[in-house]
Amino acid sequence: MEKQPLYEGKAKQIYATDKAEEVLVYYRDDATAFNGEKKGTILNKGILNNRISSFFFRLLTEQGIPNHFISMPSDREMLVKSLKILQVEVVVRNIAAGSLAKRIGWEEGRKLPAPVVELYYKNDELGDPLINHFHIQALRLATAEQVAAMEQSALKINDILTGYLKEKDIELIDFKLEFGLYQGQVILGDEISPDTCRFWDSKTGEKLDKDRFRRDLGKVEDAYKEVLHRLTGEVL
Amino acid sequence: MEKQPLYEGKAKQIYATDKAEEVLVYYRDDATAFNGEKKGTILNKGILNNRISSFFFRLLTEQGIPNHFISMPSDREMLVKSLKILQVEVVVRNIAAGSLAKRIGWEEGRKLPAPVVELYYKNDELGDPLINHFHIQALRLATAEQVAAMEQSALKINDILTGYLKEKDIELIDFKLEFGLYQGQVILGDEISPDTCRFWDSKTGEKLDKDRFRRDLGKVEDAYKEVLHRLTGEVL
Ligand SMILES: Nc1ncnc2c1ncn2[C@@H]1O[C@H](COP(=O)(O)OP(=O)(O)O)[C@@H](O)[C@H]1O
Ligand SMILES: Nc1ncnc2c1ncn2[C@@H]1O[C@H](COP(=O)(O)OP(=O)(O)O)[C@@H](O)[C@H]1O
Ligand SMILES: [Mg+2]
Ligand SMILES: [Mg+2]
Repeated sequence: MEKQPLYEGKAKQIYATDKAEEVLVYYRDDATAFNGEKKGTILNKGILNNRISSFFFRLLTEQGIPNHFISMPSDREMLVKSLKILQVEVVVRNIAAGSLAKRIGWEEGRKLPAPVVELYYKNDELGDPLINHFHIQALRLATAEQVAAMEQSALKINDILTGYLKEKDIELIDFKLEFGLYQGQVILGDEISPDTCRFWDSKTGEKLDKDRFRRDLGKVEDAYKEVLHRLTGEVL
Repeated sequence: MEKQPLYEGKAKQIYATDKAEEVLVYYRDDATAFNGEKKGTILNKGILNNRISSFFFRLLTEQGIPNHFISMPSDREMLVKSLKILQVEVVVRNIAAGSLAKRIGWEEGRKLPAPVVELYYKNDELGDPLINHFHIQALRLATAEQVAAMEQSALKINDILTGYLKEKDIELIDFKLEFGLYQGQVILGDEISPDTCRFWDSKTGEKLDKDRFRRDLGKVEDAYKEVLHRLTGEVL
């Protein structure tokens, strides 16, 4: 990758391609947490997240969920539709953990009676605050219809992923999605990986996600590898 | 007041009456801020808030907004319908201030393009966190219909109060409401006062509310008196 990226994020770069409507995502090994305060590297994370995300996007495409995935030209590169990303992070939660556990005073691991959708303002300076539909209108981050489309899609994705992962003995605790506009339509973008989901082993409760990095639990790379292995049979 | 209160809050007490469906609210002079961390007294606040709240509740009754107000038997006492208070605080905002200004990164005083409604979990231990419709369902704080009724009523109340106050040269920046159940219906309870609203003088921008206490701006009692005077002509 010698060209200048269009955008350099905390974990990935975005590169232009020959086609205006396609961009290349390059997955790095950099890991950050707590709004960038904690920084580190997870060996091979770029490869693992690219492969895991590609797997999930293919699964979602099969299930009729519009998303940006086109192909995986190399181990760290994903070719995707170029989106105008909406600055709203959509989180779906099945089990209380992380900031939700703190917010509502529930112990981590307590099952929610139904999936909870949360919307966050994607804004590093403000620490990605929780917002609601009214804030989104005031900030003109998305139209009411676009928010409804994101929430609906997120809940469908939750059903698909939860069911699929259960068969692999992985419990889907929660996950974060980003959506964007492509030819006027709201479609799923970004990644779906142990960086953006909480995965717990259904039998042992072991964490198989970025919480191992956030909370210094060790065996971070192994956890990411285990997820890839359970999903695809691949060993890295 | 020699009886034991049914409930003792940070600014008011609730007493039983002869009728099961009515309670007496006693307004004290105690002031707290920042989730109880800052404590003080504002001389005559109990009288001022009781009179101001009574005034607003009468206005809302005239305008067809169901609320708990029955009568004001004395300077610090309000007779009200006994509600099962829903543990959701409903905030309406017209101008960015306080926690909203921080949350979305707007300077205080910037006008919102449309009123913003926020829902908070009324829970002192958790610091009254912002929540959304999904959290309310998970916590079983209210049904979806009750939340819709509160939001609708809050926006109507905003229209009524904003219009009324403008004529008194007071800008209604934001305010907090509490609703409760009475015979199965959602009706407005608690108080509407400089403790629960932000009032700015339309001409000078001077703050006429509890921010004078929160931010040590001085002339706290005078500000509350000024609000009562503008609304009713009364001088305390
Ligand atoms: N299909 C896409 N088109 C354009 N931008 C995208 C697409 N998918 C994801 N992005 C954006 O690319 C960036 C990915 O890099 P990342 O390192 O995750 O960034 P961040 O630090 O913002 O989380 C994000 O800003 C994300 O919103
Ligand atoms: N009509 C009503 N019936 C029963 N309780 C009420 C009614 N109106 C208000 N309350 C409750 O009475 C208490 C008022 O006291 P306050 O000092 O404001 O308490 P807090 O510390 O909870 O804010 C609040 O908990 C409020 O929800
Ligand atoms: Mg990212
Ligand atoms: Mg109160």
